[in-house]
Amino acid sequence: MSFNTFGKFFRFTTWGESHGPAIGCVVDGCPPNIPLKEAEIQIEMNKRKPGQSKFTSQRKEDDKINILSGVFEGKTTGTPISMIIYNKDMRSRDYETIKNKFRPGHADYTYFNKYGIRDYRGGGRQSARETAARVAAGAIAKKVLETKIGKKYKTIGAVTQLGILGCDRNKWNDKLISKNPFFCPDKSVLKLWEKYLLSIRKAGSSCGAIIEIRARGVPIGLGSPIYSKLDMDLAAAMMSINAVKGVNIGSGMNSSIRNNYFICC
Amino acid sequence: MSFNTFGKFFRFTTWGESHGPAIGCVVDGCPPNIPLKEAEIQIEMNKRKPGQSKFTSQRKEDDKINILSGVFEGKTTGTPISMIIYNKDMRSRDYETIKNKFRPGHADYTYFNKYGIRDYRGGGRQSARETAARVAAGAIAKKVLETKIGKKYKTIGAVTQLGILGCDRNKWNDKLISKNPFFCPDKSVLKLWEKYLLSIRKAGSSCGAIIEIRARGVPIGLGSPIYSKLDMDLAAAMMSINAVKGVNIGSGMNSSIRNNYFICC
Amino acid sequence: MSFNTFGKFFRFTTWGESHGPAIGCVVDGCPPNIPLKEAEIQIEMNKRKPGQSKFTSQRKEDDKINILSGVFEGKTTGTPISMIIYNKDMRSRDYETIKNKFRPGHADYTYFNKYGIRDYRGGGRQSARETAARVAAGAIAKKVLETKIGKKYKTIGAVTQLGILGCDRNKWNDKLISKNPFFCPDKSVLKLWEKYLLSIRKAGSSCGAIIEIRARGVPIGLGSPIYSKLDMDLAAAMMSINAVKGVNIGSGMNSSIRNNYFICC
Amino acid sequence: MSFNTFGKFFRFTTWGESHGPAIGCVVDGCPPNIPLKEAEIQIEMNKRKPGQSKFTSQRKEDDKINILSGVFEGKTTGTPISMIIYNKDMRSRDYETIKNKFRPGHADYTYFNKYGIRDYRGGGRQSARETAARVAAGAIAKKVLETKIGKKYKTIGAVTQLGILGCDRNKWNDKLISKNPFFCPDKSVLKLWEKYLLSIRKAGSSCGAIIEIRARGVPIGLGSPIYSKLDMDLAAAMMSINAVKGVNIGSGMNSSIRNNYFICC
Repeated sequence: MSFNTFGKFFRFTTWGESHGPAIGCVVDGCPPNIPLKEAEIQIEMNKRKPGQSKFTSQRKEDDKINILSGVFEGKTTGTPISMIIYNKDMRSRDYETIKNKFRPGHADYTYFNKYGIRDYRGGGRQSARETAARVAAGAIAKKVLETKIGKKYKTIGAVTQLGILGCDRNKWNDKLISKNPFFCPDKSVLKLWEKYLLSIRKAGSSCGAIIEIRARGVPIGLGSPIYSKLDMDLAAAMMSINAVKGVNIGSGMNSSIRNNYFICC
Repeated sequence: MSFNTFGKFFRFTTWGESHGPAIGCVVDGCPPNIPLKEAEIQIEMNKRKPGQSKFTSQRKEDDKINILSGVFEGKTTGTPISMIIYNKDMRSRDYETIKNKFRPGHADYTYFNKYGIRDYRGGGRQSARETAARVAAGAIAKKVLETKIGKKYKTIGAVTQLGILGCDRNKWNDKLISKNPFFCPDKSVLKLWEKYLLSIRKAGSSCGAIIEIRARGVPIGLGSPIYSKLDMDLAAAMMSINAVKGVNIGSGMNSSIRNNYFICC
Repeated sequence: MSFNTFGKFFRFTTWGESHGPAIGCVVDGCPPNIPLKEAEIQIEMNKRKPGQSKFTSQRKEDDKINILSGVFEGKTTGTPISMIIYNKDMRSRDYETIKNKFRPGHADYTYFNKYGIRDYRGGGRQSARETAARVAAGAIAKKVLETKIGKKYKTIGAVTQLGILGCDRNKWNDKLISKNPFFCPDKSVLKLWEKYLLSIRKAGSSCGAIIEIRARGVPIGLGSPIYSKLDMDLAAAMMSINAVKGVNIGSGMNSSIRNNYFICC
Repeated sequence: MSFNTFGKFFRFTTWGESHGPAIGCVVDGCPPNIPLKEAEIQIEMNKRKPGQSKFTSQRKEDDKINILSGVFEGKTTGTPISMIIYNKDMRSRDYETIKNKFRPGHADYTYFNKYGIRDYRGGGRQSARETAARVAAGAIAKKVLETKIGKKYKTIGAVTQLGILGCDRNKWNDKLISKNPFFCPDKSVLKLWEKYLLSIRKAGSSCGAIIEIRARGVPIGLGSPIYSKLDMDLAAAMMSINAVKGVNIGSGMNSSIRNNYFICC
């Protein structure tokens, strides 16, 4: 079985393999009369696209977004918005060497056992490239929120932990985030992070990270009680990204410690 | 709100406007390891495509299907199958004259009242062109059934009533159906139907029709009780086609008369 | 697999077997602040309940509705509304004789083949008794519409064909419908219908019927384009009732004949 | 809007307020022919029910489960399984004092702002009492897994952190968990935990906790790629519980640190 759709009112379905001809997404349930241009979506695509620094995937993609439906004379019409991103840097040959190997942490083995077939090219559907299609959907969601709620409702994300190195969250600076290759919000750790990541690269390794997302001006009452509460939908969305292994809301797993004003014994 | 997805396990989402750059469909939930070629889907597309006789829409489309994902080395992988059909004969200029008019029976008026915006080009999303995307999805469903159940499970459809003219359903001939421009199963009425339809065309009018679909070799127990029973899903699928206004299963609306072996008084 | 839920925003899930301890329904997505009393739902339940004339099922049920959740101090709260109807007239003994027989037209055979088990008591889940749970959900829907849209939006249904006997739809009289045991809108045929049905009963037989539903004051734009258009949802709902074999919207299957102002030859 | 259903094939819908007449759940999609007794579900209910030690809620409930449908002669039939738990200890009077107060951390304020109405009795729908209905659904899921996969597939959970106090996860002892009031798997910390919690109670406070769930003998390939991957569904289920603020899979949020074999500088 297969479920490639996320959301309830505003829903998107993503499709496409890492090294197929294209990837894309269909957004259904977008309200009508929302001003929408490809260029606005492209801004978000550009933030995500690989190959922008030596610290990320070296794949070369311009990740050019094309809107194929659902927008007429610059406005959404309420019909499904189909978007497509053609893959440029497919390099199928590169994958010949791993044709008969399973990559750790890429669900290749699970996938092969479950389906009895796998697209070995770059993780196929399991590639993080799938998230490009979500970024396109998210860019539309952002436009809907700006139009309906206004610009005071704003979300911003940053990397707050890189491997074993944290940063000082009290020094969070919104403007800094897009101006360094680590999406770090704290200027004081940039040099250390760079040195750290360079040495990891040199050793042919990689490291995990923690991302913090801050939403401001959120209206009261987003989400629905119990099985569609906001916390649940956020956790589900995050956990569906292949590299994500944990989600905290607020203090999260530290609530047990942090929120305890009382210490006994 | 907008719901452009149909189905439960095997689901498809269609997108695209009549006169946008393309239309398409994403099939999710297709089992893996089903042999699938574009050419097999194209066979079904060719049956539907407009402009094949003087009796149907004169729009010129080759309705070439392109598979963009979900198929690897000739087999489905279990991932979503995205298909695209580029619109050739967009003729947007033709529609300038109806920019400020609502076409009867095309949901234009309803749509405009509901959404406050409309894509006036050829019915936009309300165009029967949407059904091309379903044909592509249906062609894949057919392959799944052939692979899983075998070829004894077979469905065939024909036009059994054209305007006021019926045909003799006892003379149903499978092979005739694709060999006449009316998809009629009864040879004896072909001449009359042609004469009838020509005179309607000459008068600048059109007529409705009744389609009968016969399924043979159907396994026991398709569908699920109550809210996903086969009758319901078939009725829903048919009624979602813009021109369909009635659905009968078996004797249908005539059950009240036909199944009555007892006549009183 | 099993799908016992219907609807998208306003959804209901029905449960219960014909001869189990109870049947019921959970309505999810009902807006908050709708005034709602059990007595209002009971009015609709009473219209449906069996044993009210010699012409319907002779089963004795008072079909008393109990609201278990979702209503607080006389108003809906937006949480799921659970309703239960205890079965009184279970008479399991009566069914011993049909324990090893399949009843025609009751899905018993299909069900047994599909699931390998069946509750033979009165059709179990396949019994038309399931529709009592829908009536309860429908009564709430009616209250929502009255509260949100107002009383000018009104639907009324009647039996317009009984076996081989029709009625004159031009003589439709709203007030007559609930005042005769056939739910017939045309006074002129009542005597004939009674005589007809009595003779059928005497012969140990039964007959089908056609129901016509009229909605007045319907707001423009109900439903959503294509896969949730109003016609489709209505057809799906009707076809999920076990005895329904055909659905027409407007002229329906007769569109091909009736809407043809042009007759040739 | 309201979504009180969880799951795709095996789905459950929960209903009921903390201090209404009853709470319950409808399980849809349960396979047929699974042996199922109320007593088996009751075992799980008893593990959860409040008032079993001085360390949990002092509410008195026997949480007796009643199956109302979907089970015939000791086996599931594939039809929806409706279960009901009558509330005994409703104590509505106790809540008069908080009628006009919002309880922190109970979504009362959010709920009231969103819906404009609230059931102030014990958190209403937002009460943790909702989880009793899930336990009933989970007990059935457990039976399905035992019947289909076998008993080697086993999950067990324990509290591994209580407020600021952890335990030694290497000393995990399955059998200990149900034999202490803290559901702790490590004998060595029991005394300390008791002393800690008693002092917190004495101070009129409470504390958070971390629960660890271990699944053994899990078949390869549970879940579906991307938007229904196992990690996502688990995170969604957990996060929908009102007190849960974080979810880790495996090393979770610590992956960034723990999985880093390489330390630089």
